[in-house]
Amino acid sequence: MAAQKPSIPKGTRDFGPEQVAKRKYILNTIEKVFIKYGFMPIETPTMENLSTLQGKYGDEGDQLLFKIINSGDYLKELKEVNDKGLVHEEMDKTFLPSYTGKLSDLDPKSALPFISEKGLRYDLTVPFARYVVMHQNEITFPFKRYQMQPVWRADRPQKGRYREFWQCDADVVGSDSLLNELDLIQIYDEAFRELKIENYELKINSRKILEGISQYVGASKQEYLSLLTVTLDKLDKIGEDGVAKELSDALFLEDEIQKLFEIINIKGDNLTKLLALKEKFISSQVGLKGIEELEFILKALLDSARSDSQLSNSLTHQFNNSTNQPINIKIDFSLARGLSYYTGCIFEVVSTEGSLKSSIGGGGRYDNLTGIFGLPNVSGVGISFGLDRIYDVMEELNLFPESVQSTTKILFCCFDDKAINFALPLLKKVRDEGIASEIYPGAAKIKKQLDYANNKKIPFACIIGDNEMQSGKLVLKDLNSGTQQEIQIDEIIKLLENS
Amino acid sequence: MAAQKPSIPKGTRDFGPEQVAKRKYILNTIEKVFIKYGFMPIETPTMENLSTLQGKYGDEGDQLLFKIINSGDYLKELKEVNDKGLVHEEMDKTFLPSYTGKLSDLDPKSALPFISEKGLRYDLTVPFARYVVMHQNEITFPFKRYQMQPVWRADRPQKGRYREFWQCDADVVGSDSLLNELDLIQIYDEAFRELKIENYELKINSRKILEGISQYVGASKQEYLSLLTVTLDKLDKIGEDGVAKELSDALFLEDEIQKLFEIINIKGDNLTKLLALKEKFISSQVGLKGIEELEFILKALLDSARSDSQLSNSLTHQFNNSTNQPINIKIDFSLARGLSYYTGCIFEVVSTEGSLKSSIGGGGRYDNLTGIFGLPNVSGVGISFGLDRIYDVMEELNLFPESVQSTTKILFCCFDDKAINFALPLLKKVRDEGIASEIYPGAAKIKKQLDYANNKKIPFACIIGDNEMQSGKLVLKDLNSGTQQEIQIDEIIKLLENS
Repeated sequence: MAAQKPSIPKGTRDFGPEQVAKRKYILNTIEKVFIKYGFMPIETPTMENLSTLQGKYGDEGDQLLFKIINSGDYLKELKEVNDKGLVHEEMDKTFLPSYTGKLSDLDPKSALPFISEKGLRYDLTVPFARYVVMHQNEITFPFKRYQMQPVWRADRPQKGRYREFWQCDADVVGSDSLLNELDLIQIYDEAFRELKIENYELKINSRKILEGISQYVGASKQEYLSLLTVTLDKLDKIGEDGVAKELSDALFLEDEIQKLFEIINIKGDNLTKLLALKEKFISSQVGLKGIEELEFILKALLDSARSDSQLSNSLTHQFNNSTNQPINIKIDFSLARGLSYYTGCIFEVVSTEGSLKSSIGGGGRYDNLTGIFGLPNVSGVGISFGLDRIYDVMEELNLFPESVQSTTKILFCCFDDKAINFALPLLKKVRDEGIASEIYPGAAKIKKQLDYANNKKIPFACIIGDNEMQSGKLVLKDLNSGTQQEIQIDEIIKLLENS
Repeated sequence: MAAQKPSIPKGTRDFGPEQVAKRKYILNTIEKVFIKYGFMPIETPTMENLSTLQGKYGDEGDQLLFKIINSGDYLKELKEVNDKGLVHEEMDKTFLPSYTGKLSDLDPKSALPFISEKGLRYDLTVPFARYVVMHQNEITFPFKRYQMQPVWRADRPQKGRYREFWQCDADVVGSDSLLNELDLIQIYDEAFRELKIENYELKINSRKILEGISQYVGASKQEYLSLLTVTLDKLDKIGEDGVAKELSDALFLEDEIQKLFEIINIKGDNLTKLLALKEKFISSQVGLKGIEELEFILKALLDSARSDSQLSNSLTHQFNNSTNQPINIKIDFSLARGLSYYTGCIFEVVSTEGSLKSSIGGGGRYDNLTGIFGLPNVSGVGISFGLDRIYDVMEELNLFPESVQSTTKILFCCFDDKAINFALPLLKKVRDEGIASEIYPGAAKIKKQLDYANNKKIPFACIIGDNEMQSGKLVLKDLNSGTQQEIQIDEIIKLLENS
C-alpha cells in the first residue's frame, strides 16, 4: 500500500509532552479544590444513547452531536424504507419517523434513527442527570459530584474553539440551599487563584431577576422571558444596538426596550445595583426573590471571610456595603446564559487580562434537570471550568510554573557495550531511589547522547568509559552549567534528590 | 415530553466515586513508573480519520471500528449513488469504491465511505505511529512516549470485555537497542509490584523464534509463519488438539505439527529452553538471532540486579543459570501475539492468582509501524497495560489500599440558620488549611446530617447549636467511635491534620 500522508480530523488536536503536562497541571489543580470542598468524582461513557442526548440542547445542539453508525448491517433499515416503503417493526418506536417514501426524498434527520443509535457526549450535565436517575438508589443526597472529561461538538472549528474539548464540572443535586452557590463561587475563586489567574471577573445574575426584568418591561407577555434570555446572551457579541434591533424585530416595543436598558445599565457596586433594582421590582415577586438570593450569597461570602476575632459577635454581622467583597464577584443584570434549563442563580467567569478575554467558566441552578429522565423535583446547581480556554489564557499570560513538566534527572551515556553493562546496576540503583533516570539505548557517539539529553532538558549526564570503569569514579556533567565532577554513585543520588 | 427510562449503550459503564478513585490509583501508579523510566506523555484525539485506522487491524478490526456519521447532509453522496449511479467527484478517490449500482444492492462496507470519514480510536499504537510521522520534526529520537487513554471496539460485550476501555502504553521508537526491551520488562515488573500484583507471569518470546520454528517444521513454506502465528495465538482458548486440528485443516503435515509441539513443549527453566532450541535451530539464522536476543535480555536483567559490591568485577559477569531471574519472566515458545506488525521480541503478562487468569498486558517490537504513514525504517518496541483487566484482578484479590478514596474529613452540622452563619468562617478556616471539609447545605435534622456524613464515610462531625455559639466551644463527634469532645477550632485543625 502506498504511504498515506497522515492527518487528524479538523477541530481536533494532538498534545505533546509539554502540553499534556500543562493540561494535567490545570486538571489536578481544579480537582484538588473540588475534593477540598467535598465533591466526589464520577465518569460516564463517551457514547450515550441518542435518546439520552437528543432534545436536550435545542435544535442547534442536535445538529452538533457526533453520531455513531450502528454496528453490523447498518443499512438494513434504510434499505427497507427505500425498497418497500416500510418501517422495520423491531426498531424503537419512539425513534421512528412515520416516513414511508423513497430514500432520495429522505432528509438526513429523518434517516438518522435508521442508522445511528449512539452519539458522543456533548456536555457533562445531561450525562450527569442521566447518571443520577440511573443510580439514585446508590447515591447519598445531596450529591456533590465532579467530572472531568472531554466532550465533542461538530461546531465549525475556529481559533480557540475545538470539536473535542474538556469540561471540568462540579454540581450539587438534591439541595436547594444557597450554601451550594456559595461553595461553587468559592471553588471558582480558589481554583483560579491557585492557577494564578488573578485577573478574572465572576459575573453573577439570576434567572429570577431576568424574569423580574421581563415582567418589568412588559409584564403581560410571558414569551418575553426566553426571547430576552436568548437575546441578552448575545450582548457581548452584537452590542446594545444589536440587542435593541433583535428585540425590536421580535416586536418588543420601543419603551419596553428602553426599560430593559435602564436596568442593565444600572451602575455602581453590587449593593447599589441590588437596591436600585429593588425599587423597580416592587410588583415582581419573583424578581424580588432573585434579589434576595443574590443578597444572601454576597452576605454569606462576607460571613465566610470573617476573621477569627470577629467570631464571638458575628451573629449580628450585617451585609455591609463598606466592606469589600472578598472575591471579585460582580452582579451583572445582563448576564443571561443561553441554556434553557437554568432557573435560579447563574454565573460566568471571564478572564480580564491579556488579549483573550475568554469566558473560562460558567454555570447556574436548575430545578428539574433529572425530570426528563423520570426523577422530578430535584434541584441542583453546578459550574463548569473550560480546560482549553483556561489553557489558552495561562499560556498567553505565561502563568504555568516552570517545573510543570516532569523530566528525567540523569542520563547515563556509555562509550561502548562494556560501559553499558557497567552502567545497568547504577541505573537500577538510581531508579530504586525513585529518581527518573535513563540510559541512552546503545553506544552512540557521546555528542549524540548529550544532544538527546539537552533536547529532553535532562539536567545531568553521567558519562562512562574505560577510565570510569577502572577507577570506579563516575563523571557527572551538569548540562546547564557545562561543569563536570568526579563523583560516586551514592553522592549522585544525594545530589539528584536535593536538586 | 414523557420521562424516558435512561440507559447507557451496551458494553459501556458508568463509574462512581469509588471506582474512579481506584482507576486513578492504577493509572497514577503506572504513570509514575513510566516517568521514572524517562517516558513522556502524549495524547491523541478520540476521533481519527478512517484512512488512518482502516487496514491496520485486519478485516476483523475494520469491522470493529466505531464510525462517526459525517456532519451536515451525510446522505448526499449516498443518494447520488442511488439516483444517478454516479460517484461524487469531490470525494477522496482513495476511499471510493467504483460502485455504480443501486443503494439496495450496496453492502454496508461499500456504502461506508459515503457517509463516514472518522472513527473512534481503536488502540493507542496506530495513533502513536501517525503522531510520530506528523510530528517527526519536533520529536527527539529515540522517542520514549507513554499514553493513557480510552479506546473503543464494537466487540460483542461479555464479562470482562467492554466496548470502551483504557490502555496505558509505553513505546520507544527510533532505537533498535534491546535495552529498550529491558526497560519495558522492568517497567512491567515495577508497576505490578507497586500495585501489589505479585503473582504474575511475564511471558516472552520472539517473532524471530516463531520464524525459526516455521522454518524448522516446514522450511520451504513461507506462508506457514503467519498461519502459525494466528493459530498459536489461540492455544489458550482451543488447546493443543485445537491447534493441531486447525493446522491440519490448513494442510500442515502430521510430522510438521509434531515438530511444532516438540518445540513448544520443551520443558525447563529459561536457559534450558534456549539451549534446547539452539540445537534445533542450527540451520535457522533468524531463529538463532531470536535466541540470542532473548539471551541478551535475560542477561541484562541479571546485570541490572547486580549488587553494589559486585560492581568492580562486574565486567566478567556471565549469564548464569544458577542465578534466579530477578523478575518472574518466562520464555514461552508458544506465545504468538496475533497482531501482524510485530517483528522481534513479544511479551504478555498474565495474572496467575485468583479466578481471572487475565492477560493484563502485552507488547512487542515492530520494525516498520510508521512506514505506512511515510516514515520507513523506524524500529520501535512497546508495551500496553490493560487498565480494566488490572482493575478486575485487583478488585478480586482485594489489592486496593484502604485509603484510595479521598474523603471529606469533617462535616459541620448546624441546628439552624444562625448556626450556619456562625459556622461559615470556621469552615473557611479549615479549608484554608487544605483540609477537605463541608457544611451540610441547610439546617436539616441533625440525624439526617449525620447519616449523610456516615454514608460519605466522613470521619468527624462538628455540631453547632445555641450552646456552642454561646460558649465558643465546639462539639466534635468522632463518627467511627461515636465519642465526642468539646474543642476549639484550632485544635480541630491540628487533629484533622494528623489524622
